[in-house]
Amino acid sequence: MDIPAFEDIRKAHLRIRDYIQITSVVTSEGINHITGSNLFFKCENFQKAGAFKYRGATNAIRTLSNGEARRGVATHSSGNHAGALAKAAAIHGIRAYIVMPETSPLVKQAAVKGYGAEITFCKSTLEAREQTLGEVIRRTGATFIHPYDNEKVICGQGTAVLEFLDQMPAPDVMITPVGGGGLLSGTSVTLRKLSPGTKIIGAEPELADDARRSFISGVIQPALPPRTIADGLLTSLSDLTFSIIRKNVDDILTTSETYIIRAMRLLWERAKIVAEPSAAVPLAVILQHPGYFKGKTTGIILSGGNVDLENLPFGQEK
Amino acid sequence: MDIPAFEDIRKAHLRIRDYIQITSVVTSEGINHITGSNLFFKCENFQKAGAFKYRGATNAIRTLSNGEARRGVATHSSGNHAGALAKAAAIHGIRAYIVMPETSPLVKQAAVKGYGAEITFCKSTLEAREQTLGEVIRRTGATFIHPYDNEKVICGQGTAVLEFLDQMPAPDVMITPVGGGGLLSGTSVTLRKLSPGTKIIGAEPELADDARRSFISGVIQPALPPRTIADGLLTSLSDLTFSIIRKNVDDILTTSETYIIRAMRLLWERAKIVAEPSAAVPLAVILQHPGYFKGKTTGIILSGGNVDLENLPFGQEK
Repeated sequence: MDIPAFEDIRKAHLRIRDYIQITSVVTSEGINHITGSNLFFKCENFQKAGAFKYRGATNAIRTLSNGEARRGVATHSSGNHAGALAKAAAIHGIRAYIVMPETSPLVKQAAVKGYGAEITFCKSTLEAREQTLGEVIRRTGATFIHPYDNEKVICGQGTAVLEFLDQMPAPDVMITPVGGGGLLSGTSVTLRKLSPGTKIIGAEPELADDARRSFISGVIQPALPPRTIADGLLTSLSDLTFSIIRKNVDDILTTSETYIIRAMRLLWERAKIVAEPSAAVPLAVILQHPGYFKGKTTGIILSGGNVDLENLPFGQEK
Repeated sequence: MDIPAFEDIRKAHLRIRDYIQITSVVTSEGINHITGSNLFFKCENFQKAGAFKYRGATNAIRTLSNGEARRGVATHSSGNHAGALAKAAAIHGIRAYIVMPETSPLVKQAAVKGYGAEITFCKSTLEAREQTLGEVIRRTGATFIHPYDNEKVICGQGTAVLEFLDQMPAPDVMITPVGGGGLLSGTSVTLRKLSPGTKIIGAEPELADDARRSFISGVIQPALPPRTIADGLLTSLSDLTFSIIRKNVDDILTTSETYIIRAMRLLWERAKIVAEPSAAVPLAVILQHPGYFKGKTTGIILSGGNVDLENLPFGQEK
């Protein structure tokens, strides 16, 4: 796959903008006061299906050929990409086949089912997921839409910051969470074109710091067994996202679980918005490394807001 | 006290608009689908100090004489009016004296303290609160800013719907929570002038239905001992708010605790915004009495977003 050009992201935005939510940018006096930075949150928690993933999924679906569209789309995911792909497929009258680990949260299973997708359950190992997905694809002829190792998906994710630059002046720093790197790499392509002076930072949990270790060593490092609360950031980079990130991104900073929950609490208590743990990771980085951000305007892609309200982490951070 | 005229509300808005947040209006496809109505939430949870109360408090403070301003303001409240008055006073360099029941939540005490107000604690009875407030006022000469039985406060609260009508076409129905009646009466004065065809509904918990009983009987009914989760709606109407509500409001509808928690969950899960129980009461009414709202455009003043994140009710509604 080729590294997407900015022009591809611009075209992706034209292609998807009537189907997505143009999300608002939110500020919080209280959080600015605490961080000493001037923060602008691009609220992808307000995006359809509750996460920026809907952009990439919609772009992937709207670039299928007619034959591909007839056979449907497939993916394996226990998280926001599954819900986003299922919903985007439903809106376009396309079948979606989702392979989910049998351990995935009931609330996410319900969301995917609610969008009318066909779920195939499997063991929770990556091997089992890939094998089950292979069987589903052989059976259905569906097109595999990878959550991030996919040009169309990366281009879709890169439209969030394109909108942001339409809504706000270019910030000194832009920070996004990094899991598989789709959002960070798409964001970086847009910014390098439209605002080359903006510093681009990836934010990652200390307990899932494979992107930082890859960035420093120059070789993709595997993700460790998942232990972080930021359940959207457990995957490792792909060759494609890593090559974009190495080229464009200034730094990847990590943060502890305590700071992630603290940041999440600030978003809920002060900004009054529901942000999932992964979406709180950039603010956690800002709280933990204030020197990078003090006195600067900082844009943040607030990645999503899908949480289980009966299983919240508040209180654990003290 | 006289019934405020619309012109007073318009002037109040000019007076406070540089000090308040012009809050956004939010919609949710998912919630519209569930209710069969076209709902527009005026998000006063995004207001400074987290509730519409900041409007009334700011208007009251900005209409003090110089002498009054020097002596400060006082109130008794365990809730959002206390925080709003404390913050508005701080912004204007004015002292605030807040009488709070010693049983009031630590998180609300901390907010009031954080704004630099002086707290005097008392027993939680209305008698103790009024007596303690009397002593504070005798000692300090501060001006009592009642949470709703106050023209300036009512005018401030009536500015939320004034902004709404600037942001949106006039809705078929407008619904607000009703506790002491400040928000509902201020809203009704604005609407009767700017959109006489809009139906005005007050929303109240079944377990605190004194406003509905007053509305039906024509005589103010006392609030029952507080049992509802909607802790902002425990007070009874005043002569002033009742006279405005009788004149302008079309109906007061009640809703159960189960529906209140269900509505709160929808706002958090679907709209991704943090709404406190009292703020969810109008949506709960819409869910419980769908016939009133089906196929209509309905404006909702989403009153506030101050909650204790470590003490949430989710799960109890099933």
